[in-house]
Amino acid sequence: MYKDEGTTRIEAFSDGVFAIAITLLVLQIKVPSHTEVERQGLSHLLAALWPSYLAFTTSFMTILVIWVKHHWMFTLIQRSDHAFLYWNGLLLFFVTFFPFPTALLAEFLLHPEAKVTANLYTGTAFAISLAFKGLWWYATKDQRLLAEHVTSLVTIQAKQITHHDRYGPLLYFLAFGVSFLSVSASIALCLFLALFFAVLDWLMKS
Amino acid sequence: MYKDEGTTRIEAFSDGVFAIAITLLVLQIKVPSHTEVERQGLSHLLAALWPSYLAFTTSFMTILVIWVKHHWMFTLIQRSDHAFLYWNGLLLFFVTFFPFPTALLAEFLLHPEAKVTANLYTGTAFAISLAFKGLWWYATKDQRLLAEHVTSLVTIQAKQITHHDRYGPLLYFLAFGVSFLSVSASIALCLFLALFFAVLDWLMKS
Amino acid sequence: MYKDEGTTRIEAFSDGVFAIAITLLVLQIKVPSHTEVERQGLSHLLAALWPSYLAFTTSFMTILVIWVKHHWMFTLIQRSDHAFLYWNGLLLFFVTFFPFPTALLAEFLLHPEAKVTANLYTGTAFAISLAFKGLWWYATKDQRLLAEHVTSLVTIQAKQITHHDRYGPLLYFLAFGVSFLSVSASIALCLFLALFFAVLDWLMKS
Amino acid sequence: MYKDEGTTRIEAFSDGVFAIAITLLVLQIKVPSHTEVERQGLSHLLAALWPSYLAFTTSFMTILVIWVKHHWMFTLIQRSDHAFLYWNGLLLFFVTFFPFPTALLAEFLLHPEAKVTANLYTGTAFAISLAFKGLWWYATKDQRLLAEHVTSLVTIQAKQITHHDRYGPLLYFLAFGVSFLSVSASIALCLFLALFFAVLDWLMKS
Repeated sequence: MYKDEGTTRIEAFSDGVFAIAITLLVLQIKVPSHTEVERQGLSHLLAALWPSYLAFTTSFMTILVIWVKHHWMFTLIQRSDHAFLYWNGLLLFFVTFFPFPTALLAEFLLHPEAKVTANLYTGTAFAISLAFKGLWWYATKDQRLLAEHVTSLVTIQAKQITHHDRYGPLLYFLAFGVSFLSVSASIALCLFLALFFAVLDWLMKS
Repeated sequence: MYKDEGTTRIEAFSDGVFAIAITLLVLQIKVPSHTEVERQGLSHLLAALWPSYLAFTTSFMTILVIWVKHHWMFTLIQRSDHAFLYWNGLLLFFVTFFPFPTALLAEFLLHPEAKVTANLYTGTAFAISLAFKGLWWYATKDQRLLAEHVTSLVTIQAKQITHHDRYGPLLYFLAFGVSFLSVSASIALCLFLALFFAVLDWLMKS
Repeated sequence: MYKDEGTTRIEAFSDGVFAIAITLLVLQIKVPSHTEVERQGLSHLLAALWPSYLAFTTSFMTILVIWVKHHWMFTLIQRSDHAFLYWNGLLLFFVTFFPFPTALLAEFLLHPEAKVTANLYTGTAFAISLAFKGLWWYATKDQRLLAEHVTSLVTIQAKQITHHDRYGPLLYFLAFGVSFLSVSASIALCLFLALFFAVLDWLMKS
Repeated sequence: MYKDEGTTRIEAFSDGVFAIAITLLVLQIKVPSHTEVERQGLSHLLAALWPSYLAFTTSFMTILVIWVKHHWMFTLIQRSDHAFLYWNGLLLFFVTFFPFPTALLAEFLLHPEAKVTANLYTGTAFAISLAFKGLWWYATKDQRLLAEHVTSLVTIQAKQITHHDRYGPLLYFLAFGVSFLSVSASIALCLFLALFFAVLDWLMKS
């Protein structure tokens, strides 16, 4: 009926947003000014930027895992409708916001008031995991948007994603909780979760 | 005759522009400086950034609705010609400009002279809705760029979009008018319109 | 033999670069600071930004015309090879550089030393037109990369592009020359050329 | 089985990241402020920006060569799996980081402490060449992700890439080593390598 009732453009738009969000992260690593360098030395200042490198790495890994999961879901999703476009839009809303808490964290990780930045960072990660759950719930409810002739392999894959999703929000809610107790533990948990999901993906698919 | 008399590349280019414009919005949320934080506290400063969050959310929702509508139109449009590329270019012109009034609004929403930023913001939204009307008018005039064998479903969809377009410019012109009376009412109207069109899309398509 | 000896990815990569370059232009329009606003008033400052709006509009139109022409060329080009990827890369080199002279022009259009920014701006536009000529020359030499069974329509289109290309570099060289005599005349010429090529495209293709 | 066990989306996402990273480089060329211009003159300041132009050109050429090589590899790669997505992610990690050492180099090339920026710049280029080797090793091990019916032409091409890869890391390790002895020699070597690989690509493929 339509040229594109499929998911080509929703994937292209999402890929664009993921690619830009992941690349903008580097703009948060600030080049030191000449005045600072005169006073403190360039090597010293570049070493002191380690919270920026940490924030860059954690956010890069997190968005990469999100992209891989989005990619995986869309190998099973065959159709789209308007409501689905907005569920996907909600996910992208939190993804495009993510560079802001990343920049905050890079700037204030060692500040006495760092807790509020860790709350915002882990809170955004938690919101992303919830939006993912909503997106997948909408797509799979009554197999709404999945392939029409669902093969057993699709069913197995879909169940794996559902399983994956069950723990995501819980674990990121845990990270959010931990951020009220210890900033460094909550960020370490976020980095660990990104690496953990990467390894889990690796094991589940191969 | 040609490899691509279709709309693949115009969609890819537009998706790129939409994806970048929607992701650049986050750069307008300014990370507070260490000097400010010493004086006023980080939590206080992050709370005081609420005009930035509001501007980010309103502009994100507006561009998302534009993208969904663009996506919808292009499920019905099958061909393109040079004039159409420039009509689409006019739409993208106002979309790429949109982050500037968004940044202005975020910075000066509470300033005594905020009215001029609300004029510019709602004026740009009005210009976008007019460019959309022009784009759709050009594509549908004598069914110029629609599918050759127009099915009744395509006709119904096309009429829905035409209907949608009838009120868009009027409502954004209203928001533009309101911006001369009350800044907050005009921005609230823009946010409401984006949410309203999202819900309307949802209802019309499903 | 190969999955993709075609031009899909070169088009996707180029579209990405064009879309980003055209959207980054808006970052050059600087939001005034609160200190400036206290002294001079917001409406006054926004009006005084007109060189930024002019530079944004001229560069947007120029990149849009480039994209339309690139799009048109690639409806006729069917194959690619490594040398062609680098010819295209040369074009993209000048396109990605273009936001810098645009920002310079926006900042210093009214400065006594504005001539050097106009030289750089028109010089970059001239370099883009030369890179285009090289790209098209390489693609069409002995019909190297065109469709194998060249229909008469392809031949006519290809001749139109060659014709188009003949005057492009000459006219931009003229703009470069004029920039040594009068800054405003050279920028007006650039804006005129972008609009002129847009209208010309319109007439030639429809 | 799946809609997309292929490489369409991994190519689209990578193209997005390459296109953004290559276009963001221009943001590192700083527009001089009016105060500086009053003191030193605009022409003089624009000439003094030559380290920025050099860094822009070297990084642009390097990312362009990476993109061409990535494009070439993916004409031979037919399938993807989760581990492969993460190998590709590792490559993109260093590519998205590359604008930071580029900006550092542009700012501090003539500074007495420039050595550390050259170390970081050449070190990142070395890391990119290693990530490439890993990606290609993973894809070709037991012909894991190559076309199933490997023609002799694919085999020849694959061997050329393997050959290409053998020297890449060695040469960039050399540049890294040289950066401890001479900043300018190491950057000249990076620019030379990008141009050398471009010419080599040209010769090998045509």
